[in-house]
Amino acid sequence: MASSSSLTLSQAIFSPSLPRHGSSSSSSPSLSFSTFSGLKSTPFTSSHRRILPSTTVTKQQFSVRASAAVETLEKTDAAIVEKSVNTIRFLAIDAVEKANSGHPGLPMGCAPMGHILYDEVMKYNPKNPYWFNRDRFVLSAGHGCMLQYALLHLAGYDSVQEDDLKSFRQWGSRIPGHPENFETPGVEVTTGPLGQGIANAVGLAVAEKHLAARFNKPDAEIVDHYTYVILGDGCQMEGISNEVCSLAGHWGLGKLIAFYDDNHISIDGDTEIAFTEDVSARFESLGWHVIWVKNGNTGYDEIRAAIKEAKAVKDKPTMIKVTTTIGFGSPNKANSYSVHGSALGAKEVEATRNNLGWPYEPFHVPEDVKSHWSRHTPEGAALETEWNAKFAEYEKKYAEEAADLKSIITGELPAGWEKALPTYTPESPADATRNLSQQNLNALAKVLPGFLGGSADLASSNMTLLKMFGDFQKNTPEERNLRFGVREHGMGAICNGIALHSLGLIPYCATFFVFTDYMRGAMRISALSEAGVIYVMTHDSIGLGEDGPTHQPIEHLASFRAMPNILMFRPADGNETAGAYKVAVLKRKTPSILALSRQKLPQLAGTSIEGAAKGGYIVSDNSSGNKPDVILIGTGSELEIAVKAAEELKKEGKTVRVVSFVCWELYDEQSAEYKESVLPSSVTARVSIEAGSTFGWQKFVGDKGKAIGIDGFGASAPADKIYKEFGITAEAVVAAAKQVS
Amino acid sequence: MASSSSLTLSQAIFSPSLPRHGSSSSSSPSLSFSTFSGLKSTPFTSSHRRILPSTTVTKQQFSVRASAAVETLEKTDAAIVEKSVNTIRFLAIDAVEKANSGHPGLPMGCAPMGHILYDEVMKYNPKNPYWFNRDRFVLSAGHGCMLQYALLHLAGYDSVQEDDLKSFRQWGSRIPGHPENFETPGVEVTTGPLGQGIANAVGLAVAEKHLAARFNKPDAEIVDHYTYVILGDGCQMEGISNEVCSLAGHWGLGKLIAFYDDNHISIDGDTEIAFTEDVSARFESLGWHVIWVKNGNTGYDEIRAAIKEAKAVKDKPTMIKVTTTIGFGSPNKANSYSVHGSALGAKEVEATRNNLGWPYEPFHVPEDVKSHWSRHTPEGAALETEWNAKFAEYEKKYAEEAADLKSIITGELPAGWEKALPTYTPESPADATRNLSQQNLNALAKVLPGFLGGSADLASSNMTLLKMFGDFQKNTPEERNLRFGVREHGMGAICNGIALHSLGLIPYCATFFVFTDYMRGAMRISALSEAGVIYVMTHDSIGLGEDGPTHQPIEHLASFRAMPNILMFRPADGNETAGAYKVAVLKRKTPSILALSRQKLPQLAGTSIEGAAKGGYIVSDNSSGNKPDVILIGTGSELEIAVKAAEELKKEGKTVRVVSFVCWELYDEQSAEYKESVLPSSVTARVSIEAGSTFGWQKFVGDKGKAIGIDGFGASAPADKIYKEFGITAEAVVAAAKQVS
Repeated sequence: MASSSSLTLSQAIFSPSLPRHGSSSSSSPSLSFSTFSGLKSTPFTSSHRRILPSTTVTKQQFSVRASAAVETLEKTDAAIVEKSVNTIRFLAIDAVEKANSGHPGLPMGCAPMGHILYDEVMKYNPKNPYWFNRDRFVLSAGHGCMLQYALLHLAGYDSVQEDDLKSFRQWGSRIPGHPENFETPGVEVTTGPLGQGIANAVGLAVAEKHLAARFNKPDAEIVDHYTYVILGDGCQMEGISNEVCSLAGHWGLGKLIAFYDDNHISIDGDTEIAFTEDVSARFESLGWHVIWVKNGNTGYDEIRAAIKEAKAVKDKPTMIKVTTTIGFGSPNKANSYSVHGSALGAKEVEATRNNLGWPYEPFHVPEDVKSHWSRHTPEGAALETEWNAKFAEYEKKYAEEAADLKSIITGELPAGWEKALPTYTPESPADATRNLSQQNLNALAKVLPGFLGGSADLASSNMTLLKMFGDFQKNTPEERNLRFGVREHGMGAICNGIALHSLGLIPYCATFFVFTDYMRGAMRISALSEAGVIYVMTHDSIGLGEDGPTHQPIEHLASFRAMPNILMFRPADGNETAGAYKVAVLKRKTPSILALSRQKLPQLAGTSIEGAAKGGYIVSDNSSGNKPDVILIGTGSELEIAVKAAEELKKEGKTVRVVSFVCWELYDEQSAEYKESVLPSSVTARVSIEAGSTFGWQKFVGDKGKAIGIDGFGASAPADKIYKEFGITAEAVVAAAKQVS
Repeated sequence: MASSSSLTLSQAIFSPSLPRHGSSSSSSPSLSFSTFSGLKSTPFTSSHRRILPSTTVTKQQFSVRASAAVETLEKTDAAIVEKSVNTIRFLAIDAVEKANSGHPGLPMGCAPMGHILYDEVMKYNPKNPYWFNRDRFVLSAGHGCMLQYALLHLAGYDSVQEDDLKSFRQWGSRIPGHPENFETPGVEVTTGPLGQGIANAVGLAVAEKHLAARFNKPDAEIVDHYTYVILGDGCQMEGISNEVCSLAGHWGLGKLIAFYDDNHISIDGDTEIAFTEDVSARFESLGWHVIWVKNGNTGYDEIRAAIKEAKAVKDKPTMIKVTTTIGFGSPNKANSYSVHGSALGAKEVEATRNNLGWPYEPFHVPEDVKSHWSRHTPEGAALETEWNAKFAEYEKKYAEEAADLKSIITGELPAGWEKALPTYTPESPADATRNLSQQNLNALAKVLPGFLGGSADLASSNMTLLKMFGDFQKNTPEERNLRFGVREHGMGAICNGIALHSLGLIPYCATFFVFTDYMRGAMRISALSEAGVIYVMTHDSIGLGEDGPTHQPIEHLASFRAMPNILMFRPADGNETAGAYKVAVLKRKTPSILALSRQKLPQLAGTSIEGAAKGGYIVSDNSSGNKPDVILIGTGSELEIAVKAAEELKKEGKTVRVVSFVCWELYDEQSAEYKESVLPSSVTARVSIEAGSTFGWQKFVGDKGKAIGIDGFGASAPADKIYKEFGITAEAVVAAAKQVS
């Protein structure tokens, strides 16, 4: 395996996802990296963003002693802790007040645990938010984002400066209304939709456990970090959180520590109206260690002791239930839903200032608090320097492992990896694209060190097992086959966490295509948060046959083609499947979905990896001068039908072009000239055929063309019979072609 | 409230969802109803079906004594039970074998509990599968449908006769590959996608508890049935099942009894690979009563005792964990995943016949088994007759309640109900459509006895509270505000269960429109299973502002427009909101989604309830002869923008038509003449504007038109600012209109 041996500075401090708003940092100290820092940008950037990234790169330098102190639980002077906690509260209050929009309640209640995490417990380098071995923090209750922004601000992250706090929730701000990893360096994942964050956190912890098992040596613990998460009652109610917490218990993710903000309030009032289960008992049943901090408002030592206990339990994840008061400090609104999602209002802000004895102007950070937190910049740099030195040692002793790990950290793919992709000729045996997919998955796993994944209990139907690896399990975390059980939503969100852990981790996950309906919440976050997850979705049409309409996708292709920043592939044969995988692997900031057939398909003449990469391309044409009598367009299993219909029409003397539209989004990215060469505007006689909804096809067949598809639900019967009864046939294409030409 | 006082026979035995395949019953005895039976067809039928219903109605009669015996747990002769259980097993084995497709493992393992339920416990009338007061049974592990088909066959349901069993999973069969209520009378809901069934069952039990609390009197227990459900490991792993079981415990659904088929096998092998949580402890934490039947294969008395115990616990739902052997009886495949989802194969079928001592031909039901089960036909009829008499008594004493209940049972809406819908003039105050929606919800709840619903912890944002009612809770089940907590997926599926309980129950549920991504699995089942749920989806665009892209729908309108049998409404103001509700209430077999604004919108001139019911209609036009210079098309909050742009263009001397496209699906149903009158083919200068994906709009704007929309993700900022930055403005429409005309 080849990998880059030295990274340039600019590569090294490029963020994997730069903030896209312009306000650049003005006051950050400069920093110089002399060794590998584990970071580089990916070659692809997504095209769905409205604002181009600011690529300002600043050199930074300082020198301090390395210190492991921030890793330990040390008590700090009680007064400064209290003051720091109130600073967090008021930064949140003030920012929400200025925006007149946002959620002050959670930050006011969770400030103590937030303070302890960022000031006393977590290891991180504020001047390089992407340092590989940092502890990860996820705010699953994402609406409380001002908590995290306040903490990042105090900790010294350049992404959240005073001006940013003042522009919370405004156009162009670097701190949007919910935490977004692609806007705010220091934010690991994108949360807000409830339950996603705890699932991402499970994914981050899976990544750590896997990499630690693969790369740590008795003399070099090169991968070693915790994943912390704060989740609220809302996250707890969501089904996805039970799915992933069941898996976290099953996998024994000992370095996952979740804080459950138990404040008894949700938007509609007291949680008693809809949520009376025994959460602690449920987590115990899921195999978690559970601790209850009864006083989360002022019980700092209780919180510290709980974290210490959690770290001591190494074979189970820990849930620390922290009972807090939402909106703590607000004399009239604390402990009520009114403080959850609205600004306090000037009067109540004043009352809260009086109540908590806070004499300062809005957005003020007292000097002693500033000074107290200032150590994190040198200490964080020292932590990274120390780790870099450790890695340099590791590289000397374990060159091969170091190369793999470096590829995983940087996302730089091994040279020539794409040569591993299988190719096919029309003479290659007919096969289902789900089987061809498995050939690709296994080929890729051999050459890509960060390639891993699995299925939601359908591995033998989705054909997703990596044959050279065993199962990732509690005691075999170095393996790469993930067994998600029947938990589609959790699966997708866990993969988001894995993908966002390290640029070179390339997770794939699988189920039947129709069950994307269960996991769409996570898939949209893949797209939004630029997590290049590969979704292997088999049984992609009525072609699955007897299982019937509950299992047959109809509208799913259209529904994903309409979603921003996600590639919807429907390959027709082996070459197109390989082409789809090639793009999917390269597009690290855009997730891909591969819709794959259950049924056998022939290897077609004219298909290619290169063609597939263009999204739409000519498979065959017997015309000249870019003027065929008719253009037939197919995707996936229906490309074969288009080819057969073309043969019929050619027999009758027509000139016919067959076009494969394997990925609309990639086609849309091509030049106008290319598009005119594939679909010349002068040829309006166009017929498309796809065993799914015709919704959207008018874009390509035009006013005078015809789209053949299925606009109702499917049926339970053998596949061939359904195709015939639904009119998804070469005869129908021939008839339509005659009608339009 | 007016309601039909007498129902004709044909109304009475029309099924709410007739089977759509042709094979009619030939051997059913005739039956005559002299009293109200609680059934009639709805005036609307959905249009998405490929095969028209067979409407054969047969008269049936018999006379037997009423008997409550089937309600009690009585032991039957052990030998006949064993033989009956093996009959169930072999009907499943034989049907799967003949189809060479299906899932024999579950029926073989669950035959004992299935037998006890249908032969000893449940009250039902096989000749009227829609008798109101029947016990409900749901097979949440829907792949095991041959269990249910075999039971319906033995019990005497006309829908599953020997010929049906022989056509399992074939084109035109009445017994498809997964249970579908719209294909097979006797099947209550549509299952297969895992976890949906247990959620539907919670909905059925909610309906029962609610109706019983509202209508039962000390001297008349007119609503009184159990809901039974079988779920497997797969259902247990799905997040949705935890959501709904948490609610079932919270609501204290004492008449919900769930059998957990604990067979330790899922598709990928032993459940140990992904599912090691303590399920019983989890259910206890959720407030359920839990019983473990250790020998589900032959422990008949254990199963009987468990059901008895479950019925005795009246304030909690009960989960009976039944440990079974998947594929019980198959000597070489039992207890392995190979028996889960494939035919056994001739050799193993033979071995299983030998092993279980089964000398019969395929599909044979031994005479003594047949004879044993034959009592259910007369006993079921007697149960219904008895209940009808009870209802006649009830009607005499409690006329008003009886009228309401009858409306709920039959789905016949009170005369003039639609007059309750509010109307607006351009002078009415501007308001958010979410607020206008609340006016409609409250107006409807006053006139529709079966109208109830709620939100996933966003009642005060979705504006869904019914002000004249309290909360449906454990001790106030007669109320109509459902508090779902943050459980969108479970909410949708519970509403499916409520809707399919009785034709006149009209459930609505609510969350932010973007979170349809969490509940799409349930929404698709609404559409497929013809459950007329009303989805109240607020915060429908970037217009929600500061919460940012995680909360801003973009592709959602397109994604539902592509889904069969669901109406996607986006009303622009008060009249259109009322129009959407009018259609949604009438369409009992087609669910509706209302996308509603967070922001204030003006009441526009030219909008109407009648127009909205056509899906697309002319709001204003200053041209003559059906030939405007340009047609501007808007939906929802952007109709106002189209109207403003039209004013600008008119000032410049153009003739302009403004068209509202509030529901594409309804527009598609209109006549060609009507469509030509709205969008004349000669006018190709068309501009659409919608704050969402442009995907699909080409259908209406055509090759020469222009669609204005948003094809990337949103942003966090005040709404006005986002609209401007994204170019969703009257200026953009004016510019586009000039470009195309």
